[in-house]
Amino acid sequence: METELSRQLGIEHAIFGFTPFPEVAAAITRAGGFGVLGAVRYTAPDDLARDLDRLHEHADGKPYGLDVVMPAKKVEGVTEADVEAMIPEEHRGFVRELLDRHGVPELAEGEASGWRITGWMEEVARSQLDVAFDYPVKLLANALGSPPADVIARAHDHGVLVAALAGSARHARRHAEAGIDVVVAQGYEAGGHTGEIGSMVLVPEVVEAVAPLPVLAAGGIGSGEQVAAGLALGAQGVWLGSLWLTTEEADLHSEALTAKLLAAGSGDTVRSRALTGKPARQLRTAWTDAWDDPAGPGTLPMPLQGLLVAEAVSRIQKYEVGELLGTPVGQIVGRMTSERSVQAVVDDLTRGFERAVTRVNRIAGRSAT
Amino acid sequence: METELSRQLGIEHAIFGFTPFPEVAAAITRAGGFGVLGAVRYTAPDDLARDLDRLHEHADGKPYGLDVVMPAKKVEGVTEADVEAMIPEEHRGFVRELLDRHGVPELAEGEASGWRITGWMEEVARSQLDVAFDYPVKLLANALGSPPADVIARAHDHGVLVAALAGSARHARRHAEAGIDVVVAQGYEAGGHTGEIGSMVLVPEVVEAVAPLPVLAAGGIGSGEQVAAGLALGAQGVWLGSLWLTTEEADLHSEALTAKLLAAGSGDTVRSRALTGKPARQLRTAWTDAWDDPAGPGTLPMPLQGLLVAEAVSRIQKYEVGELLGTPVGQIVGRMTSERSVQAVVDDLTRGFERAVTRVNRIAGRSAT
Repeated sequence: METELSRQLGIEHAIFGFTPFPEVAAAITRAGGFGVLGAVRYTAPDDLARDLDRLHEHADGKPYGLDVVMPAKKVEGVTEADVEAMIPEEHRGFVRELLDRHGVPELAEGEASGWRITGWMEEVARSQLDVAFDYPVKLLANALGSPPADVIARAHDHGVLVAALAGSARHARRHAEAGIDVVVAQGYEAGGHTGEIGSMVLVPEVVEAVAPLPVLAAGGIGSGEQVAAGLALGAQGVWLGSLWLTTEEADLHSEALTAKLLAAGSGDTVRSRALTGKPARQLRTAWTDAWDDPAGPGTLPMPLQGLLVAEAVSRIQKYEVGELLGTPVGQIVGRMTSERSVQAVVDDLTRGFERAVTRVNRIAGRSAT
Repeated sequence: METELSRQLGIEHAIFGFTPFPEVAAAITRAGGFGVLGAVRYTAPDDLARDLDRLHEHADGKPYGLDVVMPAKKVEGVTEADVEAMIPEEHRGFVRELLDRHGVPELAEGEASGWRITGWMEEVARSQLDVAFDYPVKLLANALGSPPADVIARAHDHGVLVAALAGSARHARRHAEAGIDVVVAQGYEAGGHTGEIGSMVLVPEVVEAVAPLPVLAAGGIGSGEQVAAGLALGAQGVWLGSLWLTTEEADLHSEALTAKLLAAGSGDTVRSRALTGKPARQLRTAWTDAWDDPAGPGTLPMPLQGLLVAEAVSRIQKYEVGELLGTPVGQIVGRMTSERSVQAVVDDLTRGFERAVTRVNRIAGRSAT
């Protein structure tokens, strides 16, 4: 499964896997794909360095990437404490009441919230980049708009390709004008922050909008048939995030959450602002229902919502409170029905792709060898 | 572009075109596809017969189909007047106020509302079937659940295949159990009534759910690359509705509406209950905004909403009141940028399909002849 982009990166299959777990990223790379480590959960540069060490060590010398969350616009001198102070008391009360109603225990005295969104803040993302450029990262992706110009320049100085996610042709054109190298066209079906245009419509629109820049198809891809569909739409590869969450190498630190993912159908997700303040697809839970309820106070804008709910999400995850327990995941969750190794997933994708190509050849009346 | 289903129906390309215009349906059939005439706008059986005459006459002896809107559950003895009486005065006032605010003129004294939803009522749909079976219709599609068992039996007695639209694997399984022959898997991107699962995820789910029944991919398809994607996902054909609205053979009776469709982007539609009471994708307008506004009275359930707004929609269309003027259409509207003949559209689809097949073969490292 070779495209210009896969050849440029020196990978066997044009399959890009986004994951917060270094072991998963390394396994995707070892299987011939391109593992991309999500950096948003790292607050301390040392933690990121430790996991990049782990990724590098297990990548067998094959290429990998890093995904940061960096706003293009810098807000000067704003600290986490400044942002905390902007959260209304009504919303803090709503969180307390919601947790009480579901009997969610408190964290222990002095116990840190494990779930952080501070990776969203530019200063944190920049400290991550200082670490990243010490590693032979081949691609730097940004999940939140184009990275700032100096970051793009710095990546290019290091010979690192820069990718950015886009939910519309307009966003994609803005990325192209900013000088990025690869656009990830992420459709409505995708987990995490996503727009309202379905992958079937979005991918070819973005391909046309930024040609000749390479585009990766993201959103709704979890089988080789879907890989073939994304490539038929003009993409030079596919970008998958959700599918790895239930691999054997992943560690969600919660058997209850893994069980929920394995049981969920494609209709069990919702695009909600409950987690970060921007619409992000995630499992639908009593938590998202409460925030999306018009009778409630509603969500706050990013980054306030993320700071507001960080401790609550940690508590829900730690105590595995079933009806509130969720995670960002795409509609493809309906296909995640068993725990498999990353290698088995990649094998399934490449075999399914071959089957689909054979199928469309038959429909086109071609015999292919 | 041949599949088992296209061979069974005796058509050249596995492209199914749904349209309210007999001239468009005939042109799709003449171009080697399968034209399907939407019957929902016909109240009088004679009007349907007149347009089926026209379709038959211009189909050059090639096969075509009919699409009705028939609820599986019969509500005994309920008339249009009974339903009218269930509409709250608050909602009638909201319609009046909205039309006044936008300066929409009244219809002339005694002028009938051209836009009707009475085709939704079972007695009307049944009278349409009495007409349809006089013609060599090869496929009967139902847009609203499985047709009643006696209708399926009657179609099969006439050698007519029965198709039903599904927005989820669960719906599709219900159709299969009811004995239908073809499932149209209609994704979130589609115009008209549609669910929340994107085509990329929905199509293979439905294919698996009803195998070995043939599935058509609908929603977001307007280019040959998208046709290839739908077929790669396991469909035995594609079902397109929106794309024909701006063909030369279509007659929307409104240059303003055609201009709006040609100018709209993929982000200019919304899934709203404003037109029928069930979520249907359509152009986003001041009309849909008003109904979707939480500060307003909200929409009524089907069929109340359709009856409530029928006259208003007729007035908006007749007087071409720009900011209110809309129509059901899918996200593919962004690709509808010029008026072309149906033949040119079909040629574009088949050529694009061939290009996409060549592309995936190259990516798969195959040479195909």
